[in-house]
Amino acid sequence: VSGPSRKNFTSDNVTGAAAEILAALAAANSGTAAGYGADEWSARLTGRASEVFERKVAILPVTTGTAANALALGLLAPAHGAIYCHETAHVMTDECGAPEFYSGGAKLLCLPGAAGKLSPGSIATSMAFIGTMGVHHVQPAAVTISQATEWGTVYSLAEVDALARVAHEHRLAVHMDGARFANALAHLGCSPAEATWKRGIDVLSLGATKNGALAAEAIVLFDPSRAAELAFRRKRGGHLWSKLRFLSAQLLAYFEDELWLRHARHANALAARLGKGLVELGGRLQAPVEANEVFVSLPEALVAGLRAAGYEFYDWISPPGGSGPVIRLVTAYDMQRADVNALLDAARTVRRD
Amino acid sequence: VSGPSRKNFTSDNVTGAAAEILAALAAANSGTAAGYGADEWSARLTGRASEVFERKVAILPVTTGTAANALALGLLAPAHGAIYCHETAHVMTDECGAPEFYSGGAKLLCLPGAAGKLSPGSIATSMAFIGTMGVHHVQPAAVTISQATEWGTVYSLAEVDALARVAHEHRLAVHMDGARFANALAHLGCSPAEATWKRGIDVLSLGATKNGALAAEAIVLFDPSRAAELAFRRKRGGHLWSKLRFLSAQLLAYFEDELWLRHARHANALAARLGKGLVELGGRLQAPVEANEVFVSLPEALVAGLRAAGYEFYDWISPPGGSGPVIRLVTAYDMQRADVNALLDAARTVRRD
Amino acid sequence: VSGPSRKNFTSDNVTGAAAEILAALAAANSGTAAGYGADEWSARLTGRASEVFERKVAILPVTTGTAANALALGLLAPAHGAIYCHETAHVMTDECGAPEFYSGGAKLLCLPGAAGKLSPGSIATSMAFIGTMGVHHVQPAAVTISQATEWGTVYSLAEVDALARVAHEHRLAVHMDGARFANALAHLGCSPAEATWKRGIDVLSLGATKNGALAAEAIVLFDPSRAAELAFRRKRGGHLWSKLRFLSAQLLAYFEDELWLRHARHANALAARLGKGLVELGGRLQAPVEANEVFVSLPEALVAGLRAAGYEFYDWISPPGGSGPVIRLVTAYDMQRADVNALLDAARTVRRD
Amino acid sequence: VSGPSRKNFTSDNVTGAAAEILAALAAANSGTAAGYGADEWSARLTGRASEVFERKVAILPVTTGTAANALALGLLAPAHGAIYCHETAHVMTDECGAPEFYSGGAKLLCLPGAAGKLSPGSIATSMAFIGTMGVHHVQPAAVTISQATEWGTVYSLAEVDALARVAHEHRLAVHMDGARFANALAHLGCSPAEATWKRGIDVLSLGATKNGALAAEAIVLFDPSRAAELAFRRKRGGHLWSKLRFLSAQLLAYFEDELWLRHARHANALAARLGKGLVELGGRLQAPVEANEVFVSLPEALVAGLRAAGYEFYDWISPPGGSGPVIRLVTAYDMQRADVNALLDAARTVRRD
Repeated sequence: VSGPSRKNFTSDNVTGAAAEILAALAAANSGTAAGYGADEWSARLTGRASEVFERKVAILPVTTGTAANALALGLLAPAHGAIYCHETAHVMTDECGAPEFYSGGAKLLCLPGAAGKLSPGSIATSMAFIGTMGVHHVQPAAVTISQATEWGTVYSLAEVDALARVAHEHRLAVHMDGARFANALAHLGCSPAEATWKRGIDVLSLGATKNGALAAEAIVLFDPSRAAELAFRRKRGGHLWSKLRFLSAQLLAYFEDELWLRHARHANALAARLGKGLVELGGRLQAPVEANEVFVSLPEALVAGLRAAGYEFYDWISPPGGSGPVIRLVTAYDMQRADVNALLDAARTVRRD
Repeated sequence: VSGPSRKNFTSDNVTGAAAEILAALAAANSGTAAGYGADEWSARLTGRASEVFERKVAILPVTTGTAANALALGLLAPAHGAIYCHETAHVMTDECGAPEFYSGGAKLLCLPGAAGKLSPGSIATSMAFIGTMGVHHVQPAAVTISQATEWGTVYSLAEVDALARVAHEHRLAVHMDGARFANALAHLGCSPAEATWKRGIDVLSLGATKNGALAAEAIVLFDPSRAAELAFRRKRGGHLWSKLRFLSAQLLAYFEDELWLRHARHANALAARLGKGLVELGGRLQAPVEANEVFVSLPEALVAGLRAAGYEFYDWISPPGGSGPVIRLVTAYDMQRADVNALLDAARTVRRD
Repeated sequence: VSGPSRKNFTSDNVTGAAAEILAALAAANSGTAAGYGADEWSARLTGRASEVFERKVAILPVTTGTAANALALGLLAPAHGAIYCHETAHVMTDECGAPEFYSGGAKLLCLPGAAGKLSPGSIATSMAFIGTMGVHHVQPAAVTISQATEWGTVYSLAEVDALARVAHEHRLAVHMDGARFANALAHLGCSPAEATWKRGIDVLSLGATKNGALAAEAIVLFDPSRAAELAFRRKRGGHLWSKLRFLSAQLLAYFEDELWLRHARHANALAARLGKGLVELGGRLQAPVEANEVFVSLPEALVAGLRAAGYEFYDWISPPGGSGPVIRLVTAYDMQRADVNALLDAARTVRRD
Repeated sequence: VSGPSRKNFTSDNVTGAAAEILAALAAANSGTAAGYGADEWSARLTGRASEVFERKVAILPVTTGTAANALALGLLAPAHGAIYCHETAHVMTDECGAPEFYSGGAKLLCLPGAAGKLSPGSIATSMAFIGTMGVHHVQPAAVTISQATEWGTVYSLAEVDALARVAHEHRLAVHMDGARFANALAHLGCSPAEATWKRGIDVLSLGATKNGALAAEAIVLFDPSRAAELAFRRKRGGHLWSKLRFLSAQLLAYFEDELWLRHARHANALAARLGKGLVELGGRLQAPVEANEVFVSLPEALVAGLRAAGYEFYDWISPPGGSGPVIRLVTAYDMQRADVNALLDAARTVRRD
């Protein structure tokens, strides 16, 4: 049985929920359950996440990635503080000031860096300057990195190590925006522990929504002693579900039988195939394809032709003097290999015409 | 077929989701949909809500009642403003400062009032005082009332009229916390329009979670021109779902075939029966039972006996010199008449012993 | 030589600056001085305040009492926190939400109490209730008391002891709003140390403006380890003077030769005389006259007559069923005994007519 | 009569207060005066400022430049808003997050630009990008420029015109940080009106402290209708002096007999002479000397020699590949021509050795 080809490559959040997730919701819908996290699903989630990350963690589910990031950064930085981030970071450009809101007005200090990655050197340089400014300058309290990055690349373990080291030397906490953490993990091929706290990550925003959940993200604290304060902050932000079992149940299903990793490996493989195919058609990748996103510059006619054929994707900021417009194509857990092949076929047809 | 009797009367948020709601989620889970509210379910919801309220409204779904209230009040009151509320209001005692957070630090000014209701006179008196204080005092910008109230009572239409009149005379916006709005509406027996904007309500927090949704609340703006600003505020609070169709679909199902009113009438009827039964057993109601909550003082032995029989409910603040401890019993959409009868039977048994 | 009688009894902030203060400003105006507190006057102030309070303190000068209170409370309470205060407290009614602003939205929890004083019992009762509310309620973090109070009374040392004890038992910090601290100290007749940290006060807002300064208040931290954070908060609030020597010099002069206490004793004595005189004329004191304020209910004709004779003072909130309107009369450091006598003479004349 | 040469060139805020300012304080210190701005000096100040700026303005005195800027920007930008500024702007690097604090967390968007100046093009480009981002990005609401700039340059009238035009086309308010406005005005040689609202400036932070006041800055609103809201914000920030006459009196004296312009012309002339002299000695100016600051790179030995001779000044950020370290030298209203000559003599001596 084959339906019509999927032509929407705009984002992984245009997907619905995986069958396993919906089934988990239905299964959790039996009888009464204590509200606000005092239910058995939420208790099990803490245990399960501690197994997944190989240490005792606190995990606080919320509904959106913006909430997870902003709550995490608000915990780490005081109102008169500052947070280092890459200049393309989601927290900087796509969250409408949520980190400032949840931190009471801390400043995001943007740093440049190739392939969407922060460099330890740029942090050290900035800290040296700020060290001369005394009370006049906001005081950096944290570093946040996106893993996978906003350019679809993945920090190597050594890169995370180096960043965390320089951060901790300056008493900065390290936060990882893992909206696509599963995709990064699938690329790295290591354990969740190896990718996070063993590298020096203090707090992780763990995304599930883009990778198969209905709506489920979580803040993972590798130091659970801060969970009590975070719980007040979550409530105060209006992010504590009364029927929290329905968030916890999604995350339990997400971890079950490695659903998250199976989804991510699948999406990553499709993106790799898509990137390779477009390069063969003359495209130029803007960054290595390491997760489930392809940033590629294509001849203008090819971009127009794909759109004419019904394909949807976003225009991206094009570098000056580049070789054609840059577009972003995103694969997802529920996309088929045939969908990618169909896009490449359509591209070939455009090229021929 | 009869299962074990339901013995949890602690709250209406211990319930799961109604079958109609879960079915709506499953039905919405087909194909891709544009993110962040640009989907067809969200578009339909605006139309549907405008029909329900008999005028063009803006409706912004969120996940929790705290979020709905705090976003609404943040829209209505500036940081140097103030908001009148009843001293028992949920926004004052149960939201961990969320209204202050979303308003940037506005002050909640608590006023007393019988049966959980604000009185126009107390607002006018306070405004007269504040009018003498100039720049030294925060400036009231809004009034918020809970409908149904925190004592399970329902403002009459005339009472809302009178409050809104005095509020508007002083240029105060009027917000209604409708976490149990359906229950109030079922009691009033009027149309949603009659209960809200025709009375002078400017903004409504519309609750669905306690009354059958998985997690769905909404801010209803009777003046849709403020929706653009509210949309930025919602995003900034981390309350904009990427897969918003799954919130909108719940609310569409909530309105469908008057599911909300059928649920509310059922729960109200059970509460009325429960209250009547307990009064016959010697209980003293602390407030008229007009929605789905019963606040009743009972002999201490009776309270203990019910707990011994497995019943769950909350102790409430007891008035000094009262006739025994006050407890709160909450009925819900998914509770059976037999469950209420069983509780009353158990109470009778305790009394006899 | 006698000038016209001073007839303005509205407030102690209608006064100008004492000659000693202006002289100190002129003396500090020599040569260049490092900005932002790195000057010699500021260094000396720390030493001088530590002598005055008989322990190492940190003292951060600011310009207004509102700034001092709000910065102090912002340091003590997190955004999701709460602060106990008397329902008449200046921080509650006269600072336009500054404590909420500087704390990021913490809630002021108002408690009643006779003679403008908080009682330990009301704090304990409230804490017991909040202890049952979990994450839903803001968490008290501090208690603030006004010394002298807003009703012109002074907490006894035993009263402060009892309050601080219950506060610390509940891990609440204790702040003293000492806008009229010198007046309280003059009444108590004890040392500054006895009146503050030896009683359990953690942070003091020390007022000088009402008592002779041009504009000078200070936050005194009895635990200087928190000064570094407070310094960032002060800068961020825009309260760090570049030419800070001109604030520090005022406070040095304020302490010099006990200027502050001489001023306060003088004003207190005038208030006592004024209160006694008015009682003899039929007035009823609303609270004991222990500092430099008199709250008294007088026959309506007497109030009108004094105003007709050119006297200025504020109407105060009158208790229901009282014996005539309540007015507030404030004496000050620069008022003469003859001014008080003249008012009493004028009152006698009105009475006779 | 000649005293020792003044050797402190670190900043214009190391100066004391001008004799005229101190005299004005003493003159204002007579009798009682209504508090909080209801005094005659404050009333006169509004009239005087309206004459100076040739239109009806509102002027709200505060104590620090940080307070003036942050209050102004907080008025112009909502919490979910953004403010364009130059990457070297004082509001970005020297105010410890005060603009974020007073705006409730708005984001400062930094743009580069030669000689410390924003360019209209960079604003237009950024607005075009943000226009594609919808609810996900903070919404620019204002532009702020420093006049004189942080590099001691002065925007020409045409440059301000062009910036204000592009700003207003995008509905952005325009704020001018005039910590050194008098110096800019002295350079431009035009009227205050020509330099501000006739160019499109909406709000001005007017500095006096660096130019002779003890501590006095002001927010000038060219649209006085916003003054009422600003008054609440000022109070809430703790910036409303009770004895406000002492701030207003300083500003009245500042305008009297063009004291502000005489001071600024003097300081500017000294800086021009200093810059010219250092260039003759091999220095390279980093920016034209148009106000009272000189940014110059000098041979390392010369810098060291001046310090050895007792001169004080700040190191500045040096451009890569430059011709020696960059230092900043600031002249001031109270510096003598002989002081500048002495520095240049000392430099010549070092060069010879």
